[in-house]
Amino acid sequence: MKCKVCREHAVVDVRRHNAGFCRDHFVKHIHDQVARTIKDFKMFSPDDRILVAVSGGKDSLAVWDVLLDLGYDATGFYLGLGIGGYSDRSKDAAVAYAEAKDAKLIVRTLAEEHGYTVPELAKLTGRVPCSGCGLNKRYEFNRAALEEGFDILVTGHNLDDEVATLFGNVLHWNTDMLARQAPVLEERVIGRDTVFVKKVKPLVRIAERESAAYALLKGIDYIVEECPMVEGNTQHRYKEAITLLEEASPGTKQQMYFGFLKKAAPKFAGEADDAEVVACSECGAPTIAHEGREPRCSFCKTKALALKRKDERR
Amino acid sequence: MKCKVCREHAVVDVRRHNAGFCRDHFVKHIHDQVARTIKDFKMFSPDDRILVAVSGGKDSLAVWDVLLDLGYDATGFYLGLGIGGYSDRSKDAAVAYAEAKDAKLIVRTLAEEHGYTVPELAKLTGRVPCSGCGLNKRYEFNRAALEEGFDILVTGHNLDDEVATLFGNVLHWNTDMLARQAPVLEERVIGRDTVFVKKVKPLVRIAERESAAYALLKGIDYIVEECPMVEGNTQHRYKEAITLLEEASPGTKQQMYFGFLKKAAPKFAGEADDAEVVACSECGAPTIAHEGREPRCSFCKTKALALKRKDERR
Repeated sequence: MKCKVCREHAVVDVRRHNAGFCRDHFVKHIHDQVARTIKDFKMFSPDDRILVAVSGGKDSLAVWDVLLDLGYDATGFYLGLGIGGYSDRSKDAAVAYAEAKDAKLIVRTLAEEHGYTVPELAKLTGRVPCSGCGLNKRYEFNRAALEEGFDILVTGHNLDDEVATLFGNVLHWNTDMLARQAPVLEERVIGRDTVFVKKVKPLVRIAERESAAYALLKGIDYIVEECPMVEGNTQHRYKEAITLLEEASPGTKQQMYFGFLKKAAPKFAGEADDAEVVACSECGAPTIAHEGREPRCSFCKTKALALKRKDERR
Repeated sequence: MKCKVCREHAVVDVRRHNAGFCRDHFVKHIHDQVARTIKDFKMFSPDDRILVAVSGGKDSLAVWDVLLDLGYDATGFYLGLGIGGYSDRSKDAAVAYAEAKDAKLIVRTLAEEHGYTVPELAKLTGRVPCSGCGLNKRYEFNRAALEEGFDILVTGHNLDDEVATLFGNVLHWNTDMLARQAPVLEERVIGRDTVFVKKVKPLVRIAERESAAYALLKGIDYIVEECPMVEGNTQHRYKEAITLLEEASPGTKQQMYFGFLKKAAPKFAGEADDAEVVACSECGAPTIAHEGREPRCSFCKTKALALKRKDERR
């Protein structure tokens, strides 16, 4: 196979585009695809201060790398989850990348910020690790972005991630989640304060194996191992099922996701949770108002439960 | 495992209902599920004359059997497709069942009605066999029902069939197909004539393996072999992908299908093809009007093409 641009030997084959690329033109292809996504979905401009949630995996390092290459003002944010050696190695990957690129990286840990790790939280609350982990990441990413004065929060969700989420939402017809599934979630303001920073996913046009190929070809030393706690995760099963179809018919994932955005998402727009958002009485973060009850966000409730149980077990 | 009704030894395990059944209570369970479906979706009443499209496979013989057991006036209709020994054996199964039950069966063949078989049609038109087969079956089922004075056309589509179709429609976001995907398609009238008979699917609550178990336990001698022409059929791949998920989480299929009907189908209702329907200038069957063109239905166009080419090759 030859590069579709320069006819040199191709190193990557993108089946759904029916195209091969040499190293340099594949890197350019990814840059172009991401630039197009940023433009099409009006994600951000060169004046914005951008915070990139960095896990040390291929997707988050790839999106950070593309944004820096494209000249954006992008700072990394690494949140230590305390998942043993996996977290140590993922932090090392994030730090090493930042040093090599001379890029700014903010590091926080759940243990220092809140007094627990993800495995501890799961044990203390009796919930699956992925649930507490997701809640804490969403909360901490948003809090860090607001505290440090960023306009935009970028995550590395790729096409495969979004399709798996869409598939799960369609299997259960979670109409409120379908209403919110978009490459951009606009900022949310209460009174004069931004309470949710604008969140964007510039890799929605990039498949998982393409972001892996990008990281590899750019010499980015990302952490390959998967989180040891996701075994049996339903999201993984959805990816498996759809990958079966993608292999038989390349382009299925892209068609499902962008077809949804164009033809079906508008039909679910009215389902978005329009509940009144108020400030949590403990942390000030936005939460849903319930009449006659002190507003308290899920994060504060979960944290309080975990710390109470931790205290009881001492 | 014990029967959930009588505590005798269970012979069928319905995982998504978390229930086992002995032979007699499983048969009753299927009767009850179908009766409930007929009632919930207002499919038909004991006064209606019902035509059941019978292929000789488990689903069509099972639905016919249940309707006869429930006391409905149900006549079978077998259409010979001319797919070699497969068609011979499937006809034998339909005829044997009708004789054993002393039920009325109408038999027609594509060869006698139109002068071609499904394999010939595929070769002559250069299209995949499933496409011409589906077009001819839809046309012939509807024509037979109208000519023979039936009120209702029943097909044996089961839960797995409907989920696979839904999945395909969601992968491609075929919004007009989503608008029409329902257990009931109402009759359509032009002027004073019914042109599309009412079509219903009483097995939408019954999974594929349940209809197979029903046929087996009732001693119905159905044709087990699959049509030899469906190799590589995308519908099969969709079933495979979803079966992966059903195995990990029983109830997934039912949730996806009935969740769709309840929560999403109404959002697509406006997408149904509201194009003007007129009579085909050749056969009188309903077809979409196109301004400035003589109305001619897909069936007549395809048939004309096939017969013209057949003539040329003589």
